[in-house]
Amino acid sequence: MVASAFLPELWTEILIPVCAVVGIVFSLFQWFIVSRVRVSADQGASSSSGGANNGKNGYGDYLIEEEEGVNDQSVVAKCAEIQTAISEGATSFLFTEYRYVGVFMVIFAAIIFVFLGSVEGFSTENKPCTYDDTKTCKPALATAAFSTIAFILGAVTSVLSGFLGMKIATYANARTTLEARKGVGKAFIVAFRSGAVMGFLLAASGLLVLYITINVFKIYYGEDWEGLFEAITGYGLGGSSMALFGRVGGGIYTKAADVGADLVGKIERNIPEDDPRNPAVIADNVGDNVGDIAGMGSDLFGSYAEASCAALVVASISSFGINHDFTAMCYPLLISSMGILVCLITTLFATDFFEIKAVKEIEPALKNQLIISTVIMTVGIAIVSYVGLPSSFTIFNFGAQKVVKNWQLFLCVCVGLWAGLIIGFVTEYYTSNAYSPVQDVADSCRTGAATNVIFGLALGYKSVIIPIFAIAVSIFVSFSFAAMYGVAVAALGMLSTIATGLAIDAYGPISDNAGGIAEMAGMSHRIRERTDALDAAGNTTAAIGKGFAIGSAALVSLALFGAFVSRAGVHTVDVLTPKVIIGLLVGAMLPYWFSAMTMKSVGSAALKMVEEVRRQFNTIPGLMEGTAKPDYATCVKISTDASIKEMIPPGCLVMLTPLIVGFFFGVETLSGVLAGSLVSGVQIAISASNTGGAWDNAKKYIEAGVSEHAKSLGPKGSEPHKAAVIGDTIGDPLKDTSGPSLNILIKLMAVESLVFAPFFATHGGILFKYL
Amino acid sequence: MVASAFLPELWTEILIPVCAVVGIVFSLFQWFIVSRVRVSADQGASSSSGGANNGKNGYGDYLIEEEEGVNDQSVVAKCAEIQTAISEGATSFLFTEYRYVGVFMVIFAAIIFVFLGSVEGFSTENKPCTYDDTKTCKPALATAAFSTIAFILGAVTSVLSGFLGMKIATYANARTTLEARKGVGKAFIVAFRSGAVMGFLLAASGLLVLYITINVFKIYYGEDWEGLFEAITGYGLGGSSMALFGRVGGGIYTKAADVGADLVGKIERNIPEDDPRNPAVIADNVGDNVGDIAGMGSDLFGSYAEASCAALVVASISSFGINHDFTAMCYPLLISSMGILVCLITTLFATDFFEIKAVKEIEPALKNQLIISTVIMTVGIAIVSYVGLPSSFTIFNFGAQKVVKNWQLFLCVCVGLWAGLIIGFVTEYYTSNAYSPVQDVADSCRTGAATNVIFGLALGYKSVIIPIFAIAVSIFVSFSFAAMYGVAVAALGMLSTIATGLAIDAYGPISDNAGGIAEMAGMSHRIRERTDALDAAGNTTAAIGKGFAIGSAALVSLALFGAFVSRAGVHTVDVLTPKVIIGLLVGAMLPYWFSAMTMKSVGSAALKMVEEVRRQFNTIPGLMEGTAKPDYATCVKISTDASIKEMIPPGCLVMLTPLIVGFFFGVETLSGVLAGSLVSGVQIAISASNTGGAWDNAKKYIEAGVSEHAKSLGPKGSEPHKAAVIGDTIGDPLKDTSGPSLNILIKLMAVESLVFAPFFATHGGILFKYL
Repeated sequence: MVASAFLPELWTEILIPVCAVVGIVFSLFQWFIVSRVRVSADQGASSSSGGANNGKNGYGDYLIEEEEGVNDQSVVAKCAEIQTAISEGATSFLFTEYRYVGVFMVIFAAIIFVFLGSVEGFSTENKPCTYDDTKTCKPALATAAFSTIAFILGAVTSVLSGFLGMKIATYANARTTLEARKGVGKAFIVAFRSGAVMGFLLAASGLLVLYITINVFKIYYGEDWEGLFEAITGYGLGGSSMALFGRVGGGIYTKAADVGADLVGKIERNIPEDDPRNPAVIADNVGDNVGDIAGMGSDLFGSYAEASCAALVVASISSFGINHDFTAMCYPLLISSMGILVCLITTLFATDFFEIKAVKEIEPALKNQLIISTVIMTVGIAIVSYVGLPSSFTIFNFGAQKVVKNWQLFLCVCVGLWAGLIIGFVTEYYTSNAYSPVQDVADSCRTGAATNVIFGLALGYKSVIIPIFAIAVSIFVSFSFAAMYGVAVAALGMLSTIATGLAIDAYGPISDNAGGIAEMAGMSHRIRERTDALDAAGNTTAAIGKGFAIGSAALVSLALFGAFVSRAGVHTVDVLTPKVIIGLLVGAMLPYWFSAMTMKSVGSAALKMVEEVRRQFNTIPGLMEGTAKPDYATCVKISTDASIKEMIPPGCLVMLTPLIVGFFFGVETLSGVLAGSLVSGVQIAISASNTGGAWDNAKKYIEAGVSEHAKSLGPKGSEPHKAAVIGDTIGDPLKDTSGPSLNILIKLMAVESLVFAPFFATHGGILFKYL
Repeated sequence: MVASAFLPELWTEILIPVCAVVGIVFSLFQWFIVSRVRVSADQGASSSSGGANNGKNGYGDYLIEEEEGVNDQSVVAKCAEIQTAISEGATSFLFTEYRYVGVFMVIFAAIIFVFLGSVEGFSTENKPCTYDDTKTCKPALATAAFSTIAFILGAVTSVLSGFLGMKIATYANARTTLEARKGVGKAFIVAFRSGAVMGFLLAASGLLVLYITINVFKIYYGEDWEGLFEAITGYGLGGSSMALFGRVGGGIYTKAADVGADLVGKIERNIPEDDPRNPAVIADNVGDNVGDIAGMGSDLFGSYAEASCAALVVASISSFGINHDFTAMCYPLLISSMGILVCLITTLFATDFFEIKAVKEIEPALKNQLIISTVIMTVGIAIVSYVGLPSSFTIFNFGAQKVVKNWQLFLCVCVGLWAGLIIGFVTEYYTSNAYSPVQDVADSCRTGAATNVIFGLALGYKSVIIPIFAIAVSIFVSFSFAAMYGVAVAALGMLSTIATGLAIDAYGPISDNAGGIAEMAGMSHRIRERTDALDAAGNTTAAIGKGFAIGSAALVSLALFGAFVSRAGVHTVDVLTPKVIIGLLVGAMLPYWFSAMTMKSVGSAALKMVEEVRRQFNTIPGLMEGTAKPDYATCVKISTDASIKEMIPPGCLVMLTPLIVGFFFGVETLSGVLAGSLVSGVQIAISASNTGGAWDNAKKYIEAGVSEHAKSLGPKGSEPHKAAVIGDTIGDPLKDTSGPSLNILIKLMAVESLVFAPFFATHGGILFKYL
């Protein structure tokens, strides 16, 4: 009836893993280049420079700025020492986290297996398929077992991505500092390449593991693609569950360490901000890596895995799955494969085709990355849609099959891709101090902290408008063309340039750390100025990254919601029924509940850190004098334990809500809850992130004092500056803890519902059954 | 087929207006009693006391506290002077507002007439009825004309209620101050009675006008009840449109005057807070009356009118309307009539049955009012449901008729009534400084303003949980039993004790004003202590009032939404369609857009006020010396003009959104927008109000220093107190402007959609039609 895709199955089987491997190799190559900057005192910078004099861009090139202190071996030694401390701290955090995560994974894996196995009473018999009862499908017990395996695989991949990302970040920070002695361009390249390692590693390994999992599961499932891709959804749940730990725990961690270090160090002991004598200073630097690198990485990995799973599970009951058209079935994976190639080319624009020669070129270079990748990817999507899809096919649309053309699917992916770019630029407009919104907020500091907070909150609320319209248009176009499959591929479109997005995003905290290391190692003011310039550009890109994460989370959640509804056998989610409307109302409340928890958690965790830092200053002799080393690891452990403990209540809220609602109230109410939390959560997430980002940059605007207006508000320590600092502190938990964590809330509840959908459809809604 | 109600039609026709008239008479009687406190210098306090020595409770009774300065005629003269200034200010505000409101009303009335008239191309022919085409109904042009008339009547009633409420409040404030010289109990009675005037006048006149309108319209419509009650919905739209002006404009007004007066008076000129030399001080006092009396009054009047209209329009197409059972049809009005009687009895508990003898009895007395009215009303609802309803009947449920028993409808009303009480008490728990949440926020001021803001925001978010569950349960019960009619009567249940609720609510700003007058008139510290005690209790009840307003707004909006959907001929609002989901997403964004506007408006309006106050201090000779009178009216005018100008953009957002969405995108998308703004707006409204209330009371907690803990944070001027003041200032626009205005947003969009439903159903969705 329907033609199959142009690209033969064998080619698909080869192309996807090849692209993934290319991504991984490229990532390792970048790592190799970064590793040639030596951070050992006995070799020094000159040999590092000499060792790479055959490369371009920073290695053997003419020097664009005056070199400074490149031969000072004591500085290199100090940098190496600090880097080791941060790296040790990061490892200490990871190991503690994994202990908790391990326990959680075992328990939740058991829940998945038992709940899904109980759907057919643990029968090992084959059964008629759900959507086509003339065929025979594998038993629910098999789906339970394979979902559990996929869950663990997703979780392990996410953990591994986070671990490696953090490792490269803590590996690159000191190298960036050292390169900054040779000029801002060279430092930029090191930081950016390190970000690219993280970006490509995550995108490629996520794709590869998913691809291998599908092929291995296929050996058992054979022709039962419905069951196969049902089981694959566990991969998304695994990835996203880890993201919960990464984002929420990491968010609490980083802000607790930040506040704890400042309260004792700066206020009680009168030592500078990044002083190595402060036991919490390493935890603070670790926190940047934990929150912004590992947290963001696992968040976006979760989005990517979930969007793929949502697309696959809908495709499996559409003509692709019914006709066993493997190439078309793998369309989501082909998009991601193409994405890796496109991002690879895009990266070369920053590292090899052009060269950063001045500070003011950094931010445009980063923004160009986004534009270039989006433009090239548009062509890439066109190619994939042409060769990877039949010209016409059908997509499952809540009970019916809808005819879709390949150009329509092309438009679905494109609309997501470009919406991401729009969201990114709107976020930049509202959070960068180059534009009037942040400058207005800074100006409002004249009349004190209260007006600063009022204007900042108003800015955050206002910044929601355009992103929501962009998301709404994406949803409308993709939904109208190809139902929930369209929404899922739109999300994949937004995430297709994930490698570049993550590279830019990871670049920020690496530069931030580099600045901290320069300060701690006692390097000159000029070096610090260069790292600060890198960091300032990183701040804006971090906000853009958050915008992407939230936008894609909204699309992914909707796609997962659609997949859940399809799988639970619900055909309409009618607001005009009591079950749905109360679900909608309560669902819209959950982000508030969750935010209340996470915001208070930061406060409690920070208090514990304060106690530990005080204890060390009081009990370790010679600490203040610099003769004794503080116990960094204990602070890291305190922060880790406190943050993981504090994240249990919000974590439970997210993990238990779908189970409780689905089990007691049934799939209709759960549908309402998912829709409600989606439409409400996305607004709070955007406004919280942007409000926090705006306050941060308003403070930086006053501190930098570049324009006449900024100078009239400064300098550091003036009344307006004090007001700005209060805003910045309020913004910290908003932008780094509660705001971004809401992404996870909406995605995780949706993917969990999807995985447990057969269970809810069979055993759910007991409260209404017995009333 | 279905039996008719026990109560004969004639009795219904008599009972409703009698109850309304009883309410009005009772209100006038309270006014009469209050008026016996003389505020003219030539008569003095002793004659006032002597003139009322035959009454109980404060008139001729033994004096419970030492009298102080009751014979000081100069104080009375000063009070009279200040009162006149406030009253003049209020009148000046009202007259300016009415000019703007008049223009708006004419334009919008024309829009209603043209849009609704165009439904059948301005045909004057009768047509087959929408829900029963065997019958003949009046033409759409008639509905257009009568809707327009109803709109104007609703608007005029709302304006009149607001005007009279503000008049009695500005009449009672100085009287409360003067009575405070004789004791806290006497002052309480005056303030409370004055609140009751407002409460009963509003509840009774709202009922009476609605009742008369129905009966007059019936002369034309005859047997066409469908058309009759369609036209009546204009009454709700009129009432609610005025509430928009009252709440948003009033909210901006009061905070602009507040901030403006403080910035110039306290900071620049170093004069005390309520100093009569400050030109903005009267505007500030007027603002309390504008925002909290007129604003709250028109808001609740709007809710009441809308809930009644929603119930009536659904009933008209249910068995009540089909069988022309007038008593059952008037069930919503009977509930309100009973409410007036119940509140009348309840009021006597505060004014005559018991007597306030000490400060600590005030708050329990006010809270008891709520409990007593709820308990008695439960019995009242049972009686009305028994006599006013057939034992079994059918209710229109989106295309089908659903059989309902009278006891089920009784439960619907009750669940709304009791949910209101729960919301009230939860609000109190989170905003009163007698409980740990506010004390925790106060404690967080130790570490500065930033932690205060973080804890305050977290408190607001957390305070949403229980109210949302209460609303969800109300919706579930009432919706399950009697579809949207159930939800509408649940809302009416919550609003049935509106007279008592408003009395308590109006009591707050009257006491607040009384304190200000005592300060301005230079009365002794002990008098000020007594009015402060009254005011403190008023703060908590104001928060409770806001909780009620939001809770009822949620139910009312849902009922209106249901009525809109029924009237637009939509049978399902399926989240799983692109039109609905984008509506939901954009609808959930609107409260943020609206809040961004209103919060910034407060800032802009305050700046204009600052300029005017500075100008007067600089140009009027002798002002600082107290020899010249400031130009209060100009400040009031500035505040009025600025607030009305600033409220145009948010007003347009609310008024135009349903028209634009309905006209271009059609009823499905509009349904999504309404549902989205409802579920999202109610959360922001609750959290914003409670956060602001908590900050206010945290500041008061530190200032009062009653407990050891509070003393450790104080006194006034300490660092924690400064941090608390910043929180309080941030909370002002949240709790008095943007938060409560969101009630109007969600209700007004819903009622507007309902009124324009036939137009949207006929001409709406042109964008999708031509795409």
